[in-house]
Amino acid sequence: MGVFCEEHVYGFSSCFRGSLLFRARGKTEEVEVWENPVFGRIMVIDGQVQLSEKDELLYHEFLVHPPMVLSRSVDRVLIVGGGDGGAAREALRYGSEVTVVDIEPLVPKVSRMFFPNLSRGLEGTNLVIMDAFEFLKEGEEFDVVIADTTDPVGPAERLSTKDFFSMVKEKLGKGGVYAGQLGSPILDAKRVRETITLLEGVFEHVLVYPVPVPVYPSGTWSMFVAMDEPPRVRRAPPHARVLPSSILDYLELGNELVRRLLSVFSAP
Amino acid sequence: MGVFCEEHVYGFSSCFRGSLLFRARGKTEEVEVWENPVFGRIMVIDGQVQLSEKDELLYHEFLVHPPMVLSRSVDRVLIVGGGDGGAAREALRYGSEVTVVDIEPLVPKVSRMFFPNLSRGLEGTNLVIMDAFEFLKEGEEFDVVIADTTDPVGPAERLSTKDFFSMVKEKLGKGGVYAGQLGSPILDAKRVRETITLLEGVFEHVLVYPVPVPVYPSGTWSMFVAMDEPPRVRRAPPHARVLPSSILDYLELGNELVRRLLSVFSAP
Repeated sequence: MGVFCEEHVYGFSSCFRGSLLFRARGKTEEVEVWENPVFGRIMVIDGQVQLSEKDELLYHEFLVHPPMVLSRSVDRVLIVGGGDGGAAREALRYGSEVTVVDIEPLVPKVSRMFFPNLSRGLEGTNLVIMDAFEFLKEGEEFDVVIADTTDPVGPAERLSTKDFFSMVKEKLGKGGVYAGQLGSPILDAKRVRETITLLEGVFEHVLVYPVPVPVYPSGTWSMFVAMDEPPRVRRAPPHARVLPSSILDYLELGNELVRRLLSVFSAP
Repeated sequence: MGVFCEEHVYGFSSCFRGSLLFRARGKTEEVEVWENPVFGRIMVIDGQVQLSEKDELLYHEFLVHPPMVLSRSVDRVLIVGGGDGGAAREALRYGSEVTVVDIEPLVPKVSRMFFPNLSRGLEGTNLVIMDAFEFLKEGEEFDVVIADTTDPVGPAERLSTKDFFSMVKEKLGKGGVYAGQLGSPILDAKRVRETITLLEGVFEHVLVYPVPVPVYPSGTWSMFVAMDEPPRVRRAPPHARVLPSSILDYLELGNELVRRLLSVFSAP
């Protein structure tokens, strides 16, 4: 048994005992799979924990259901990143046509080998291996776009820019919603604030909410929904087990809570 | 510079780089103070991180303001544990008469040496060094009782029993509130559920809510408010910086969220 540690910021780490089941370099990223006694199998990309069997439900439900229930239509859904299939699995529960665009072919491959509960989301999905920036230059329109990306270092860096957010907005149909993960409001407070400011420069309404993800550094993550129409819940989430029934209240209270976390943790 | 790790459950640890500033055995507990680049000074009791300078505000505001705004009266407040002074500091903002009963004389001493922003809560407070179980056998009545205890191992074990909860209830005036910390809804799911069941056997209304505490294992903690009257907000928190303005909505949504976390993480 070995130990894997992620030191997200200098001085504070999460460490997982476990066995290394897989490690390989893909086209753009290094992917590892560990087996851990608390969280089951853990996928690590470029040294950052991406998900575990035990808590992926929290992450994917909170990522996917808010934009799906807020969007005017959910016929066509684009997931940027998310090659593991978890976000696609949740979106498929709405009967949507789902496209997943991931830059790294190794991620769906590893997901199919080690994470069957995630990779089943890839079946019946249109999986495209391509840079999302290039993909969005093409013509298609979507009702919901969900950024299920790694942190904005390396290949994902360009996906956290005003240019990218503007491209997403152009591809969204009327009443469409853009959603994604933002980082730790505690350890990444400054960057999360900056990204929110960029999003607010492009979309009329941006709600930011906290999500408990125990395998991520600091244990509390932030996600956003961004849209031009005022947020209102248009449909119920199908059998969501983790999300509170009153999603809009949760998002609005969460928005305030995250802003206060950001101000506490980016204070000098 | 050294490293301190807390392995709350086997296989998953939080590790903090830092310098050890202080370590001594008190009457019942071993107390350490570390200086960490992310969280500032960290107090550790019996190997468990209790608080840091950087995130103690989150913990103490979420622990103290909910019971204070829900209680019919806040004239007399009892804090069980909390010898560091942080909970007392928040309760004093309501003009209450505050009594702190901590079993360990070393905790207030260390707080005065290393945590001035916490220990200032001890000034103007009635500090009693005594077993809380013995203290409650005496006559006094309180409007609010707040359990700011270590986890229920060692000296704090008896404070998580039905006997103790019943003693607290007897000491509470009409419309009074009992509140406290419960543990990680993720790593301690089974024990948290059991404690909620005990509380529900004693009090009419129990709300459980999640609190982001990044220095605690899994990053998400749970706290409760327990009372016999239906929960309603009777007063605003004074200048609370972290709590959402709509505390009751937060508690009610939080209650549902924690129950779902407990069911996800205590599922087989």
